Amino acid sequence: MSGIVEIPPRSGTAFELAAGELLAVIDPQGTQVADLLAYARADVREAISNGRTFDYEETVRLTAGNRLWSNRSNPMLTIVEDDVGSHDFLLTPCSEATFRHFYPEHPVHRGCFGNLAEALAPWGVEPDMIPCAFNVFMNVPVDANTGKVSVLPPLSKPGDRLVLRAEMDLVIGLTACSAYASNGGSFKPIHYRVG
Amino acid sequence: MSGIVEIPPRSGTAFELAAGELLAVIDPQGTQVADLLAYARADVREAISNGRTFDYEETVRLTAGNRLWSNRSNPMLTIVEDDVGSHDFLLTPCSEATFRHFYPEHPVHRGCFGNLAEALAPWGVEPDMIPCAFNVFMNVPVDANTGKVSVLPPLSKPGDRLVLRAEMDLVIGLTACSAYASNGGSFKPIHYRVG
Repeated sequence: MSGIVEIPPRSGTAFELAAGELLAVIDPQGTQVADLLAYARADVREAISNGRTFDYEETVRLTAGNRLWSNRSNPMLTIVEDDVGSHDFLLTPCSEATFRHFYPEHPVHRGCFGNLAEALAPWGVEPDMIPCAFNVFMNVPVDANTGKVSVLPPLSKPGDRLVLRAEMDLVIGLTACSAYASNGGSFKPIHYRVG
Repeated sequence: MSGIVEIPPRSGTAFELAAGELLAVIDPQGTQVADLLAYARADVREAISNGRTFDYEETVRLTAGNRLWSNRSNPMLTIVEDDVGSHDFLLTPCSEATFRHFYPEHPVHRGCFGNLAEALAPWGVEPDMIPCAFNVFMNVPVDANTGKVSVLPPLSKPGDRLVLRAEMDLVIGLTACSAYASNGGSFKPIHYRVG
């Protein structure tokens, strides 16, 4: 288990991931979401895109074997292991505005959006360049009849992992998500390992 | 019917829409998609966002009464009339890369992506600033069990309209979509009117 890095609750980080390297995202306690962003190391204007991914993978339910694509139609990451099988790519990172909207009874938090913006700034990523994240372990069923989107507690159990392989040199943003509904009402750390 | 502008088949345009103005997108022949983008006139780094919209509207099926939100969590457009009730906000504009991927037997076309990029360039919108479009009349059911996304012929009949009200000063990009599957296999014009 060497090389594991902990992302404390309600925080985020960023790091480089070289082509061919594996990134394991681990939920050490269970029921915790991690928002994941990816940018091309060579030019951060190339970024992960939910729309291109849904188009090329022909599904909104992404799991082992699926690839995550960029806005320039290049594969950025391939999912190589998935203990959970339930992740979200529909919704944007929680932010001050989403806290005011969904949780008026709670203190405002900068959320994954603020955490990602700070962590990614050294690579030249500006806040407006943050697209929909791939929300690892997030449980967002869509009602086929009405289109209604629900945010339910994650299905991840302690130690569950998602492993992705980089298909190009990347800058990764990764969080331990800060929103109440997304994480079953409590905030836990996320672990990751690069190898 | 004065003030109607025609977008020829497989082309696109861009124009400004002031706060409070109405934009009617009309399918004159039926079974034709129009990709719609919106940017804040004051700062085009603020752009329409499928993820923020799904989050705040709590649905992927957007119709009269729903708002389309920006990446900065501001409402950009409100849908005020909808003759069809079937639109897509999951998929990105068709492009040279999607033509090579999905239609290897057909000539490559620059698609809605290329048409939008050219039309929006005078406002400072660069190709990497093109997010998922709101694909008016596009018929993309999602299988609730598998997550599979299908692209079916649009349900729009001749003369069907979608009317949106601008909630801020906007730059709009709008196309008559160029992809085979999205338009039931043939390419028709789109009409629009601002008022």
